[in-house]
Amino acid sequence: MIKITLPDGSVKEFEKNSTPMDVAKSISEGLARNIISADFNGTTIETTTPLSNDGKLVLYTWNNDEGKKAFWHSTSHIMAQALEELYPGIKLTIGPAIENGFYYDVDFGNYSVSEKDFPAIESKMMEIARGKHNFKMRSVSKSEALDYYKKQGNEFKIELIENLEDGTITFCDHSTFTDLCRGGHIPNTGIVKAVKLLSVAGAYWRGDENKPQLTRVYGISFPKQKDLKEYLELLEEAKKRDHRKLGKELELFTFSSKVGQGLPLWLPKGAALRERLENFLKKAQKKAGYEQVVSPHIGQKELYVTSGHYAKYGEDSFKPIKTPKEDEEFLLKPMNCPHHCEIYNSKPWSYKELPKRYAEFGTVYRYEQSGELHGLTRVRGFTQDDAHIFCTPEQLDDEFKKVIDLVLYVFGSLGFENFTTQVSLRDPENPDKYIGSNENWEKAETAIINATKEKGLNYIIETGEAAFYGPKLDFMVKDALGRSWQLGTIQVDYNLPERFDLNYKGSDDKLHRPVMIHRAPFGSMERFVAILLEHTAGNFPLWLMPEQAIILSISEKYEKYAEKVLNLLENNEIRALVDNRNETIGKKIREAEMKKIPFMLIVGENEANDGTISVRKHGGEDLGSISVEEFTNLINLEISRTLKQF
Amino acid sequence: MIKITLPDGSVKEFEKNSTPMDVAKSISEGLARNIISADFNGTTIETTTPLSNDGKLVLYTWNNDEGKKAFWHSTSHIMAQALEELYPGIKLTIGPAIENGFYYDVDFGNYSVSEKDFPAIESKMMEIARGKHNFKMRSVSKSEALDYYKKQGNEFKIELIENLEDGTITFCDHSTFTDLCRGGHIPNTGIVKAVKLLSVAGAYWRGDENKPQLTRVYGISFPKQKDLKEYLELLEEAKKRDHRKLGKELELFTFSSKVGQGLPLWLPKGAALRERLENFLKKAQKKAGYEQVVSPHIGQKELYVTSGHYAKYGEDSFKPIKTPKEDEEFLLKPMNCPHHCEIYNSKPWSYKELPKRYAEFGTVYRYEQSGELHGLTRVRGFTQDDAHIFCTPEQLDDEFKKVIDLVLYVFGSLGFENFTTQVSLRDPENPDKYIGSNENWEKAETAIINATKEKGLNYIIETGEAAFYGPKLDFMVKDALGRSWQLGTIQVDYNLPERFDLNYKGSDDKLHRPVMIHRAPFGSMERFVAILLEHTAGNFPLWLMPEQAIILSISEKYEKYAEKVLNLLENNEIRALVDNRNETIGKKIREAEMKKIPFMLIVGENEANDGTISVRKHGGEDLGSISVEEFTNLINLEISRTLKQF
Repeated sequence: MIKITLPDGSVKEFEKNSTPMDVAKSISEGLARNIISADFNGTTIETTTPLSNDGKLVLYTWNNDEGKKAFWHSTSHIMAQALEELYPGIKLTIGPAIENGFYYDVDFGNYSVSEKDFPAIESKMMEIARGKHNFKMRSVSKSEALDYYKKQGNEFKIELIENLEDGTITFCDHSTFTDLCRGGHIPNTGIVKAVKLLSVAGAYWRGDENKPQLTRVYGISFPKQKDLKEYLELLEEAKKRDHRKLGKELELFTFSSKVGQGLPLWLPKGAALRERLENFLKKAQKKAGYEQVVSPHIGQKELYVTSGHYAKYGEDSFKPIKTPKEDEEFLLKPMNCPHHCEIYNSKPWSYKELPKRYAEFGTVYRYEQSGELHGLTRVRGFTQDDAHIFCTPEQLDDEFKKVIDLVLYVFGSLGFENFTTQVSLRDPENPDKYIGSNENWEKAETAIINATKEKGLNYIIETGEAAFYGPKLDFMVKDALGRSWQLGTIQVDYNLPERFDLNYKGSDDKLHRPVMIHRAPFGSMERFVAILLEHTAGNFPLWLMPEQAIILSISEKYEKYAEKVLNLLENNEIRALVDNRNETIGKKIREAEMKKIPFMLIVGENEANDGTISVRKHGGEDLGSISVEEFTNLINLEISRTLKQF
Repeated sequence: MIKITLPDGSVKEFEKNSTPMDVAKSISEGLARNIISADFNGTTIETTTPLSNDGKLVLYTWNNDEGKKAFWHSTSHIMAQALEELYPGIKLTIGPAIENGFYYDVDFGNYSVSEKDFPAIESKMMEIARGKHNFKMRSVSKSEALDYYKKQGNEFKIELIENLEDGTITFCDHSTFTDLCRGGHIPNTGIVKAVKLLSVAGAYWRGDENKPQLTRVYGISFPKQKDLKEYLELLEEAKKRDHRKLGKELELFTFSSKVGQGLPLWLPKGAALRERLENFLKKAQKKAGYEQVVSPHIGQKELYVTSGHYAKYGEDSFKPIKTPKEDEEFLLKPMNCPHHCEIYNSKPWSYKELPKRYAEFGTVYRYEQSGELHGLTRVRGFTQDDAHIFCTPEQLDDEFKKVIDLVLYVFGSLGFENFTTQVSLRDPENPDKYIGSNENWEKAETAIINATKEKGLNYIIETGEAAFYGPKLDFMVKDALGRSWQLGTIQVDYNLPERFDLNYKGSDDKLHRPVMIHRAPFGSMERFVAILLEHTAGNFPLWLMPEQAIILSISEKYEKYAEKVLNLLENNEIRALVDNRNETIGKKIREAEMKKIPFMLIVGENEANDGTISVRKHGGEDLGSISVEEFTNLINLEISRTLKQF
């Protein structure tokens, strides 16, 4: 008999060589139907793997990330089999599960495979799936493994096997197909009820551009046809909400090949949107006691050597900027903190003057390979809504809580209601990885955990995920499509105060080190606007909309009245425009809908006579004829629903 | 007889070899007493130079820049004589007049001369001056000139003479002193009534750091003792108003040797001041139809090759930024215009949509040698209040006038009432120096001149001073000390639209080139704040002051009332602070005066009982006890006197 410990802490006895499936059956028939993978003592195993000794067992279903991983990895075996049958003689390399689905990198030899071949491959895959073939792992010796692939002439698998130790090599069989594989499969192919191939792309063997180019086939699969349908709808919706597409349609930003990749140019509407976001945060920050500063976008190389950023970003980022006459070297700043440390250092401080909270919308530059660039989410220059708080260790608790309040206020005002947080602590078993005294770390970690608890945040703790200079709290928001984005971060830092020799005079008249908090609720203006675009599909909160209303005149007879209404709205600080073109009202409405303008104000004979406007909301709701004053009240009420005072 | 044409166009006959002094005497005795130099057919001559043929004569007095130049250059001869007498064996090199005074570069050999030696030198100079020695020019042959300096062993003068053509070499004698000199002196040393040596500095021979180092002695002189006294008072006042000193005292900005020279760090009060200036201009620009954009601080090298900036700044500025992986090169942007051209180019335009006016507070970087750096007026990174207007040639007239209106509004709101303008046109004799059609140039030049006239501006025309790409209008303001600063500029540009292939569809359905206007009313935020500091001595216009009022409590009993007043003021958008320290009211007032806070609001028993504040203006004026409401009205009235609506 062996003792199996389950995640709830309960311990059950089973016969030696029982399988995870046996354990599942002993719990419930339902679980046994749904179990697709398992973890034994930290290693992914099959549901059919015999358990030969005591240990901890976790059972995975489709609802676990690990379960999905096994599902998708298994489907990559099915795809490999299908490809081998359709394209005899191809060479398989590796086929892992990824965040959404799986891929397989294949040397197709003389075949050329494109999207038009997907239906045939998918249909072959479903044929295999319906065969309900079991996945079976078996150990093979190194020479046996090498022989198998030498016969096939597959130099890729041979290279993989040569790097493995004899005695650790396993193959996985299902149906007529065999693959070199570490394991982690679903019980049989029949569980896969829907597959969809997504794209093909070029990929170098082992990611090395000097090695042979392979074809990467991406796909995804599901245990129910309905799940695939939902996923494809989500993809379609995500495509519609793609911030690059919306950014162009709404004329928010552009890129220029002459200026350079990854360097956004903000068009007037985008720059105004960004400025509204900045002013919104500035206003809240002013109330919270922050002070704005302005620092240059370059600094001497030595500055970043002192800060440690050169060691971190130096070699992989933009190269130093030399000068024509003097022996100086500058770097584009990858972060604002060294500059803010120097601002702090420009005068002596007493504990009575702390905390100092320096804020800056500081544009930083970091090199990214062109293949990594993506719209506004992955750029080479971006503006952080940065701030650094310099406080005494005693103030840390309180300051941290205040930052959480600010971040929550920001999320609330922008309609991100669904978010989780992660507290990253140090690894207690590796104290040498971290700088700063044990006492300070304990204080900081306790401060973060207490603050997070006290604020009632939904959080997980990740031990060992802290930065080497201090623990942190990250905010992950879920967007309208259920996708997770990492946004704001709050970090405690004992490192830079040390490196920049920052200090203050304490009540004991001696010099002490302040603690620093780094924080950015948006993260960066670029990334935040991108996420906001995808989250809202361009229907921003009303206070943020580039145009809040458009006045549509029914005919040219009402042009003057339309202009008068515009004037009244502008006096009431409502952002509005007029469409006085000689077009039908239907066309004007359709175009205003496209531009996502929240309110359409239609003016014709009745409205001009009564001094009113006919209000139609984006989407179609008719609010009837009201006065400009009533409309102003309505808009202000709507704004105050999302945009509270900090 | 010869015919002499005077500046008023009148022509008079004089005997051949008459001198400018003779001409002056023929006009008036007063003029003869004051004439100190002259210009004949474009060459500076002495008042004693015989005129041997017909020509145009201009007579200079101390009131002309040219007269001052002769005066100061002559004084440099006097100083040279004094130095030779006090330090026998020194080697003289060159001694020109400069904007304020003169200098002489001297190889002092083993002597060391410092400020403590100035009184003795000045006294020797005045002794020479009182001798009323005439300045006399004489021609010498090259070999004679070389012989003279070979005897002295002065390799510097020898080098100068060797580069001159025989027949053009002149010496100037006065008293026992002789110097190699092109001419341009006052009649005699007696006119110099006051001298003051100002400083010594190191200077390389011919400005080349590989050549011997010389000592540069700076001085200034005047025709009246009173003028010197006034000048020294001005210097003293300028020192007090030095923006570097005030910037530190008022905690506006700082520099860090770690961040790098010439890269200002704006402290909270300075950043807020700058933001108020930016918001002020943004507001006016919004009304004037400008749209804000945001562009990155770097661009690909090719962008600036296209724009021509690489040819202009490339070699002498910050070197290109290379990347670790790809073969790309970026430059720190020296100007915003290429980026704005690319923004314009991001979509097609119709003539109906023009003008487009893109504005950006864009930070640009240009390398300056460390010796050239000076506070905020000469830096390596600065933020231009930049905008580019893209319009049709037909719109140019009107757009230019609108920009003048904006510039005048900016100057008026900031207390610069004393300014002149300069219209820079092309040189009609060198049409090849300029790009763009003759027709466009004529249109643009006419547009600028008409606009300048129509706006009633006090202007001078400088032919040949236009940029190669178009004519321009520059604004020179006089500060409170009478010093002139070049501020705003408006430039017309036909070059960049060509280089970036900008176009719009005209009413004829064909593509046309727009015209560009570059403009910056402030010039740059850094330079403008520096000038404003020196102009106002830190007493900014009330709307701009970092703190508009300070509440001073008479004792701790009135702390709460002081906080209440602060609260009321803040609700009325008045920037105020409280001094509740346990100090005497006298000390609190003195410190508030130092900080240049415009209003001190004293609160004690009477005020707390009556719900009033006792108002004292910066400088001492007592406005008596009034309510917070009355004070708010007073402050708003005062602001509206300088800050009008645009």
